[in-house]
Amino acid sequence: MAGDRFVGPAPLSVLVDALKRLPGVGAKSAQRMAYHLLQHDPHGARMLGQALGDAVDRLRHCARCNTFTESEICETCASPRRDASLLCVVETPADQNMIEASHSYNGLYFVLMGRLSPLEGVGPNEIGFDRLLARATDGQVREVILATNFTTEGETTAHYLAELLRAQGLGVTRLARGVPAGSELEYVDAGTIAWALMDRRAP
Amino acid sequence: MAGDRFVGPAPLSVLVDALKRLPGVGAKSAQRMAYHLLQHDPHGARMLGQALGDAVDRLRHCARCNTFTESEICETCASPRRDASLLCVVETPADQNMIEASHSYNGLYFVLMGRLSPLEGVGPNEIGFDRLLARATDGQVREVILATNFTTEGETTAHYLAELLRAQGLGVTRLARGVPAGSELEYVDAGTIAWALMDRRAP
Ligand SMILES: [Zn+2]
Ligand SMILES: [Zn+2]
Repeated sequence: MAGDRFVGPAPLSVLVDALKRLPGVGAKSAQRMAYHLLQHDPHGARMLGQALGDAVDRLRHCARCNTFTESEICETCASPRRDASLLCVVETPADQNMIEASHSYNGLYFVLMGRLSPLEGVGPNEIGFDRLLARATDGQVREVILATNFTTEGETTAHYLAELLRAQGLGVTRLARGVPAGSELEYVDAGTIAWALMDRRAP
Repeated sequence: MAGDRFVGPAPLSVLVDALKRLPGVGAKSAQRMAYHLLQHDPHGARMLGQALGDAVDRLRHCARCNTFTESEICETCASPRRDASLLCVVETPADQNMIEASHSYNGLYFVLMGRLSPLEGVGPNEIGFDRLLARATDGQVREVILATNFTTEGETTAHYLAELLRAQGLGVTRLARGVPAGSELEYVDAGTIAWALMDRRAP
């Protein structure tokens, strides 16, 4: 649409273009965001500007688990209370947060910061599986728990990693598939029901 | 959800919180944006940070039309080629851009930077109708074209402004309602068809 091309003073069009770099933000939302910040939240705009610079300047990848951290080694990896024989592989720090929130895991993590996606040209080299391999074969890790998403790409990643890690003699497991806690079967999709039947267990 | 509460190093949680101030961005998208920028586009993060500061520092409201500008008076208002007897009232600079893109208007604008919304506590004082009134009664303006959106709030705003401006002896018009150019009637909503029938004209 013609109206998608932004016309306006330079600092505004530069801001709109910069906002369009955010994932999921198109021309229209970028304009809406810019107007909102300038009209209703200039303080928020300044805070966000500062936060972006600070984050890029101060964060790097943990040398052990690859998550974002301010130090060489993140707090989790540095903790003596963690079980170093368990390594849980997740796609993103958000997934790690979800697992931590379950209060049911006390091992360590490796954060892929992505997943295999042949269609988007993301192969094993782009994800840095060599770093995971080095981490998993440190002599302490006994079991690697694959907790990538249950999407096509997450499953592909899990299958690939399972072969890679089993070839090193490591125990490899995957999060259980099944009916979510609190679900009514009527509202659970058929694929999940099929999984739950296949993996049925003694009550 | 527990996982919505962000756990991570300070510069990352500060960035996630700042991104949540953007309209339409919740906890999950803010996390996704932060990870994306840090992992795949640190240059974009720096550019956005700079652009936010620049925009807030350098932009203000045009003294005549209220749009964002770097100077006291914006380029459009300062142009001698514009018909100063026509004043088109729009909600946002994006709407002004759409009208400019139609290449069918050569008058001036007033940008409300909002619309009446009693439910959200936005009344005439919040929108600054007094400034519009002062602008429209400069002695040069003969016709005010109300081009607020055809939403409930836009229509309310147009009705309110029509009364206010007519009381000053100004000519007031509204953008025509009807079937959009290039539409097949089958796919046009019934309310629009009703409008188009009511406002039917000689071909
Ligand atoms: Zn770590
Ligand atoms: Zn102006």
